[in-house]
Amino acid sequence: MPLYEHQRHKPQSTDSTDDSRELIVACAPMRSNINLSGIARTASASGINRLVLTGNAKLINKIARDGADELSVEIHRTLPPVLKGFREAGYRLVGLEQTTNSQDLNHYTFASRTVLVIGNERTGLTEEILAELDDVIEIPVYGLPHSFNVSSATAMALYEYRRQLNPTPS
Amino acid sequence: MPLYEHQRHKPQSTDSTDDSRELIVACAPMRSNINLSGIARTASASGINRLVLTGNAKLINKIARDGADELSVEIHRTLPPVLKGFREAGYRLVGLEQTTNSQDLNHYTFASRTVLVIGNERTGLTEEILAELDDVIEIPVYGLPHSFNVSSATAMALYEYRRQLNPTPS
Repeated sequence: MPLYEHQRHKPQSTDSTDDSRELIVACAPMRSNINLSGIARTASASGINRLVLTGNAKLINKIARDGADELSVEIHRTLPPVLKGFREAGYRLVGLEQTTNSQDLNHYTFASRTVLVIGNERTGLTEEILAELDDVIEIPVYGLPHSFNVSSATAMALYEYRRQLNPTPS
Repeated sequence: MPLYEHQRHKPQSTDSTDDSRELIVACAPMRSNINLSGIARTASASGINRLVLTGNAKLINKIARDGADELSVEIHRTLPPVLKGFREAGYRLVGLEQTTNSQDLNHYTFASRTVLVIGNERTGLTEEILAELDDVIEIPVYGLPHSFNVSSATAMALYEYRRQLNPTPS
């Protein structure tokens, strides 16, 4: 019998996640619904259950796959009022961006109730949104083009979030 | 002065990487050059400098961006003979796939010379390729569609590889 046999699309993993933990992904108005749909698929497969979109956002089913089935998706006109509401509800507002005073994602510890705020592909997070944030996290870049695609960067951030909930087996 | 100001596309990070370390990304024939080009951009921005493609692969500059400038890209007809060559040269062959006997990426330690082997979007790594591998690493999935897009999954694996080279500041 071969050592490695396919188990593609097998039932999901479980972890020790305590139900009071929550990560919400909130996206500024984006250029590309392809990127948004990629984010929706990654978020859903990562067990995230709430996605906030803004502007003319529309998910493409072929890309988001069944992601949108388990994910609660809300579309708002703009992000700042939504972020203010989350802050009042006790969430930590964390932007993913290359900025001054950012923290390296490799060494960042996610709070138990976090909103991960994702900026536009070209222009990133606006000054108005940056001013609302508690933290900015940044993924180290080691080569050209000196930035990651927004959907790939979000995948890395969600991977790191999940990794922190998955302790080394004893 | 605002706390968080943009530093998009700033010069690259450096880390303590010893030059004898190397990760090569090798892709089986893929359905989508969009996915391949996304992988090329992420690999290059992650400081990977060698990408092996197979079949009718063609990078799309608009997506790969400057990725292909710093990245050495080779295109081969099929993957198994290339993998055999890497094994003879002392690389560990590591597939990214959902299989039996896989290891959780969250807890996997990359060897200093590794080839990360990426499978086709639909069919994954073939049995012929699986039989060549030293390890299979798998990313835990917590919701529908019970799998990640190949470009997002590769981004997560490259993030984890880089994270292991970026020790907590003392």
